[in-house]
Amino acid sequence: MPNIPLSKRALQTPPSPIRKLAGHARNAKAKGTTVYHLNIGQPDIPTPKEYFDGLAKYNDKVVAYESSEGNLQLRTAWSKYMQKTIGVTKPAEEFLITTGASEALIFLFMICSDPGDEIIIFDPTYANYIGFAAISGVNLVSIETKLKDNFALPSKEIIQSRITPRTRAILLCSPNNPTGTVYTKNEIQMLINICNERNIFLIADETYREFVYDGLTPFSVLHLDNNNSNIIVVDSLSKRFSLCGARLGCIITNNQEVLRCGLNLAQARLASPSMEQIAAAYMLDNISEDYLKAILQEYEIRRNTLYNSLSKIKGVTANKPQGAFYSVVQLPVKDSSEFAEFLLTKFSHNNKTVFVAPANGFYMTYQGGLNEVRMAYVLESQHIEQAAEILEYGLNAYQKI
Amino acid sequence: MPNIPLSKRALQTPPSPIRKLAGHARNAKAKGTTVYHLNIGQPDIPTPKEYFDGLAKYNDKVVAYESSEGNLQLRTAWSKYMQKTIGVTKPAEEFLITTGASEALIFLFMICSDPGDEIIIFDPTYANYIGFAAISGVNLVSIETKLKDNFALPSKEIIQSRITPRTRAILLCSPNNPTGTVYTKNEIQMLINICNERNIFLIADETYREFVYDGLTPFSVLHLDNNNSNIIVVDSLSKRFSLCGARLGCIITNNQEVLRCGLNLAQARLASPSMEQIAAAYMLDNISEDYLKAILQEYEIRRNTLYNSLSKIKGVTANKPQGAFYSVVQLPVKDSSEFAEFLLTKFSHNNKTVFVAPANGFYMTYQGGLNEVRMAYVLESQHIEQAAEILEYGLNAYQKI
Repeated sequence: MPNIPLSKRALQTPPSPIRKLAGHARNAKAKGTTVYHLNIGQPDIPTPKEYFDGLAKYNDKVVAYESSEGNLQLRTAWSKYMQKTIGVTKPAEEFLITTGASEALIFLFMICSDPGDEIIIFDPTYANYIGFAAISGVNLVSIETKLKDNFALPSKEIIQSRITPRTRAILLCSPNNPTGTVYTKNEIQMLINICNERNIFLIADETYREFVYDGLTPFSVLHLDNNNSNIIVVDSLSKRFSLCGARLGCIITNNQEVLRCGLNLAQARLASPSMEQIAAAYMLDNISEDYLKAILQEYEIRRNTLYNSLSKIKGVTANKPQGAFYSVVQLPVKDSSEFAEFLLTKFSHNNKTVFVAPANGFYMTYQGGLNEVRMAYVLESQHIEQAAEILEYGLNAYQKI
Repeated sequence: MPNIPLSKRALQTPPSPIRKLAGHARNAKAKGTTVYHLNIGQPDIPTPKEYFDGLAKYNDKVVAYESSEGNLQLRTAWSKYMQKTIGVTKPAEEFLITTGASEALIFLFMICSDPGDEIIIFDPTYANYIGFAAISGVNLVSIETKLKDNFALPSKEIIQSRITPRTRAILLCSPNNPTGTVYTKNEIQMLINICNERNIFLIADETYREFVYDGLTPFSVLHLDNNNSNIIVVDSLSKRFSLCGARLGCIITNNQEVLRCGLNLAQARLASPSMEQIAAAYMLDNISEDYLKAILQEYEIRRNTLYNSLSKIKGVTANKPQGAFYSVVQLPVKDSSEFAEFLLTKFSHNNKTVFVAPANGFYMTYQGGLNEVRMAYVLESQHIEQAAEILEYGLNAYQKI
């Protein structure tokens, strides 16, 4: 009996570019090699005590369904937290809780677009946007940004020229994954203007909003326009509170129709997990405003360490990104996927090696980023220094083969 | 500025038929009326102690991403649990953990079908299948089953006649939500035969597998054929262990291509929540085999109570379903949606009323189940008795208006 053929969309959904090398890393570790993980944005900072405290206070006898739109205490706490920390007022009713920012974005792709419709993104882009597009049948239209410009947005004219009758939204991630770029107020205002003029949505992925350095303050698109039904913010607790595994995200908008359609999608999957929501509500209500300050200082040190260490390596071009905890770095190699695999399978220095994410997986353009990697500085500085040193040895060894 | 129009698929995703009356129930309760919830399959049985024990043992400092395919301990524990309780051997590698059975089914709709392809279901059906189909652009082809036949499957000829070149799968939920019907081995073997002959998938939603009464033993499609790559089982811990709010489901199949495409979809959303998976693994490894026995005795008593109470009410036609914890019941009304709303908004007896789910929302056919409701017997017997009594008063009052 022949195998039943699967759907085109399933076959087109790409495996994660970060995770497909994971098997090699496991094998290296099984052989006793220490692997420095610069490949994935999994913070090593402890989850706040207040989260576990909130969880411990859970005393229902039944782990019952939460409401589809999310726990009201969490929506209220998140609303208050935004008010308190960044001074943006959005009522709890304008929050729809999702199972991570991933689900928020999948919902929004589906709400804004029918199959074949287009959403504009900037290249390089968060790789999973490509997966969300495959799932939802959306065509991503990518607009190039360049390492040499620190990945700044192109001109209004260039962006406008890529809008077609099927364009439904522009999606911006700021601070950016994978580049670490923090877009300026002028750049974001330009996008708002374009979206208003063309009557399309601006989807702002603010997962890394608080992760800004060099004296910058956290900035939301809602600071520029808090009363615009074309603007939809996606937020997440994953990175800010080292809660990646709790899968806590949300959609924030005053667009009632988007909220209503989002609720219908949310009802189709019943609810997000209950206990996390209750724990997170407690955490947001009780966490000190100083919590993030210490973390940001630590990340700024790590960024500086990574930048300084990489700057010393011949042939390596790195920016000093002002946000998130990523950097897209150009290496003196032709194919960074091959090099990343080499590091994990054929190389070690003092029985240590480095896991970096080939940047090509973050580009929509076929040849994009072939000589670039994304590095996540989610390790202590001394490990980052060591990782950069090992990378240098790795580059030398690779150039000799 | 006009509102930006949303996608057709978002506008077509229906609100949950169970949840849309929920506002009326909240209002009734706010006015001090006691509402007996027969409307939703949220068990009142306490979640096993072993689940909370497992959660308490979590001692990682960071709530980090779980692997996309699910925690290996959980996949192993689930595999062992199936072996121990129903004697079916499936290795951990054939389990893909999902955020509830809901996500498992959304993944499978997407893996099996491209937009416009067809999946066969039996009417009445679990209402959320309609939502999954809207999300994935799948056309559900419904085949009628009837209350008077206790919702048994129709003949092989009738089912075959509905298969077209675009049919990709038959989806069966047994024991059934909403009808409580437990399909016979012959009926399930017939579906396996059809799927083999036509080379389409059989998706078996076994969320309620253990909930069988009258001396029946839990039965999986895998008992009939454990080595068939056309068969995909969806399983869930939600109902079996009162863990609806933990969102723990899975896909089980030996079809490597389905598992691989499922993993790609799973990677696009990164991971299911971490702590639940670790807690559930501990629970499955440690829970006594007797745990479910006591629960099933309790549900059997409740089913008998509901059936006996309803049988006394003039004009009401009820079956004695042998599984799950639902019954589709015919009432002497023309429009059960209107009646359900009446019960919540215009009626009470001794300041008490009943929340039932209009069955029309469980039918694909436009006029299906207009005089039927789904009742979930997830309350203690004495409350079920009272609810039935109140329903009778409600029917009398409704017939007078």
